[in-house]
Amino acid sequence: MSKRSFSLRSPLDMHIHFREGAMMRRVAPLSAETFAGGVIMPNLVPPVDNLDRLSKYEREIRETVDGHAFEPYMTLFMRPYTESELASMKDRIIGVKLYPEGVTTHSEGGVGNLRDIEGTLALMEELDIRLMVHGESTDFVMDRERAFLPVYEDLAARFPRLAIVMEHITTRESAELLDRHENLSATVTLQHLLITLDDIAGGLLNPHLFCKPIAKRPEDREALLALALEAHPRLAFGSDSAPHPVDKKESAGCAAGVFTAPIALQMLVGLFEEHGALDRLQAFVSDNARRIYGVAPPEKTVVFEKTGAVIPERYGDVIPMYPGRELDWKVAEVR
Amino acid sequence: MSKRSFSLRSPLDMHIHFREGAMMRRVAPLSAETFAGGVIMPNLVPPVDNLDRLSKYEREIRETVDGHAFEPYMTLFMRPYTESELASMKDRIIGVKLYPEGVTTHSEGGVGNLRDIEGTLALMEELDIRLMVHGESTDFVMDRERAFLPVYEDLAARFPRLAIVMEHITTRESAELLDRHENLSATVTLQHLLITLDDIAGGLLNPHLFCKPIAKRPEDREALLALALEAHPRLAFGSDSAPHPVDKKESAGCAAGVFTAPIALQMLVGLFEEHGALDRLQAFVSDNARRIYGVAPPEKTVVFEKTGAVIPERYGDVIPMYPGRELDWKVAEVR
Repeated sequence: MSKRSFSLRSPLDMHIHFREGAMMRRVAPLSAETFAGGVIMPNLVPPVDNLDRLSKYEREIRETVDGHAFEPYMTLFMRPYTESELASMKDRIIGVKLYPEGVTTHSEGGVGNLRDIEGTLALMEELDIRLMVHGESTDFVMDRERAFLPVYEDLAARFPRLAIVMEHITTRESAELLDRHENLSATVTLQHLLITLDDIAGGLLNPHLFCKPIAKRPEDREALLALALEAHPRLAFGSDSAPHPVDKKESAGCAAGVFTAPIALQMLVGLFEEHGALDRLQAFVSDNARRIYGVAPPEKTVVFEKTGAVIPERYGDVIPMYPGRELDWKVAEVR
Repeated sequence: MSKRSFSLRSPLDMHIHFREGAMMRRVAPLSAETFAGGVIMPNLVPPVDNLDRLSKYEREIRETVDGHAFEPYMTLFMRPYTESELASMKDRIIGVKLYPEGVTTHSEGGVGNLRDIEGTLALMEELDIRLMVHGESTDFVMDRERAFLPVYEDLAARFPRLAIVMEHITTRESAELLDRHENLSATVTLQHLLITLDDIAGGLLNPHLFCKPIAKRPEDREALLALALEAHPRLAFGSDSAPHPVDKKESAGCAAGVFTAPIALQMLVGLFEEHGALDRLQAFVSDNARRIYGVAPPEKTVVFEKTGAVIPERYGDVIPMYPGRELDWKVAEVR
C-alpha cells in the first residue's frame, strides 16, 4: 500500500538565491516556511565580500524570515582575501563561493585567473573554510562543466584538507568525480534530476527552465538521479532556486535561473516515491548536509500528504518551474 | 584593395516561410525585393496538400509580391498522394516537403511512419518530383539530425532516381553525407553558418536565435561554413526565414524560427568577403540552385555597397536576427 503521509525532519537547501529587497521579501519566506536552513549565495550587486556587507545581508535575511525556524548559512563571494579578513568572518560563514568570471548571473566580478586566489585557498585550507564552486569554464555551453573538472581535480589534490563543494552538478562525469576525492562533495538541484536540454529547447523554447549550468543530456540526468536516489553520502540537495521577474525571463535576453523553492520538497517527495526511494529522501535533503557541512539546523518537521496540489502560476512577478502542474503531494503541516 | 561594390545575379532562397494573410503581406515583399525566387514552405494550418489549397496559396503569394521580379516555387506538404493527384500538381510545384510528425512548427500532421508514404515516394521518383525533407527524429534535441541520417541513406539508396533535398542541414555529419549519394542535395541557412547553441543559450537565452533544427556545436558550424564557402555544387542557400510575432518569441513557450529574409544577402556578402570567398557567393545563392533544381528565375541584379547599414530593430511585430547590429554592406540598388 502506498503511503498517504510522509514527513521530513529539518530539510535543508544547500544552494539558494535570496536576492535583496522586494524580491527577498517575496521569496525568502517561501523557503523559510518549509526548509530549516539554506546556504545563501553571495552574487549580489555589489557582491557579499566583506564583513560589513555580510553583516547587513545576514541581518536583512534574518528580519525577512523572522518567525520561521530557519538558519541562513552565509557565504562570501570569492576574491583574494587576507588572513585577517578571513579570520574575522570565518565564524559567520559556511564557505566562500568561487565564480569563474562571466559564467552566470552577476559573475562579472568573478575570478578570471585561479592563480589570483592561490593564497586565499591556502588560507582557507588552514582556517578550515569551505570552498564552494560554480564549476564551469567559458567553453561551448554543453562542455563547460566537463571542461572544468580538471580544475576540481587539481584543487582537490593540491589542497587535500580543503573541503570543496561542486555546486549544482549537471553531468555524469561530475557524478563520477565525487568518488575520486575524499575532500569533494556536491549539491544537485531539483531541475537537473528532472529535465534535459530537451525540456528547454526540444519543443517550444522554455525560458522558465533555463538555468546555468544548462541541463544536459539524458544520460547525465540519469546519472544525477541515480546519485540522488541512493542519497550518495557526499551529495546534498541545493535547489539553486533563482527567481527573476517574468519580464527578465520572457524576453529577448532571458536571465538564467529556475524558481523552485516553494515546490521543491513536494516534488522531491513525489520523485523519490515514484522510484521507491522515499526512505532515502531524509538523507538527501537533510542528514547528508548536516554531516558534510557540520551544521545543526533548527528542529522542524514538515508533513506531506498525498492529497494533490497544483503549482501556482505565479508568485507575484516570479513564475515557478512547471506553473499549473498537478502534484501528488502537498505540504500539510510544518511544526 | 577591398571591394566597395558587389553584385549578385538573381539570388534565390531555396527555403522560405511566407506564412499567410497579414504576416505574408509583411514578410513576402521583403524577400521579393532582393531575391529572384524562393521555395515556399507548405506547413500552414491546414497544410498545403491539395490542388485547391495550392492554387489559392500561390495566388495569394503572387498578389502579395506583385511588381517584384520574384518567382515562388511552390511545395506540397507530404501525405500519401495518389498518382492522379501528383500528376495534376506536378507542374505547379518544385517538390514535396516531408515533415516527420511533431518535429517543428505545424508538423503535427506530418508523417509518423515512413511506410505510409512508400508508394508516394515511388510515384514521385517515377514522375520526377523532388523530395524535400526536414530531417529530424524525435530523439534528444542535439541528436535529432544525426539520428535521421540513416533515413536519408536508406531513401537515397532505395530511390536512386528520386532527387532528395536535405533541408537546413546543421551538422558536420550531414555535410559529409552530401558526398556519399548522387541524388542528395542540401540547403543551409544563414544562422547555421554563424551561430552555435552557445549563441542561443550560452549567455542570456536568446529566443530570436532559436530555430529547428537547433544550432549545434562549433565543429558543426565550421563544417557547414566550409561547405558554403566552397559553394559545394550540391548545396544551395535556403534561409528558412521563419517569422513569428514578438509575443510568440519572447514568451513562456517560444516558437522556433529565425527571421533573416531582409538581411540575409547583406550578411552573406559580409561573411563571404570576410573569408575571401566572395567569388563563390554567386554559386551559393543562385547558380547552384538553378542547376540542382533546374530553375530559370527572373533576371535581377542586386548591387551591394560597402557603406554600412544597421539591421532594423523590428519589421512590424517581427524581430529579425541581430536587431540593431551594424553591417558592412547594404543593398544599394536592385535592377
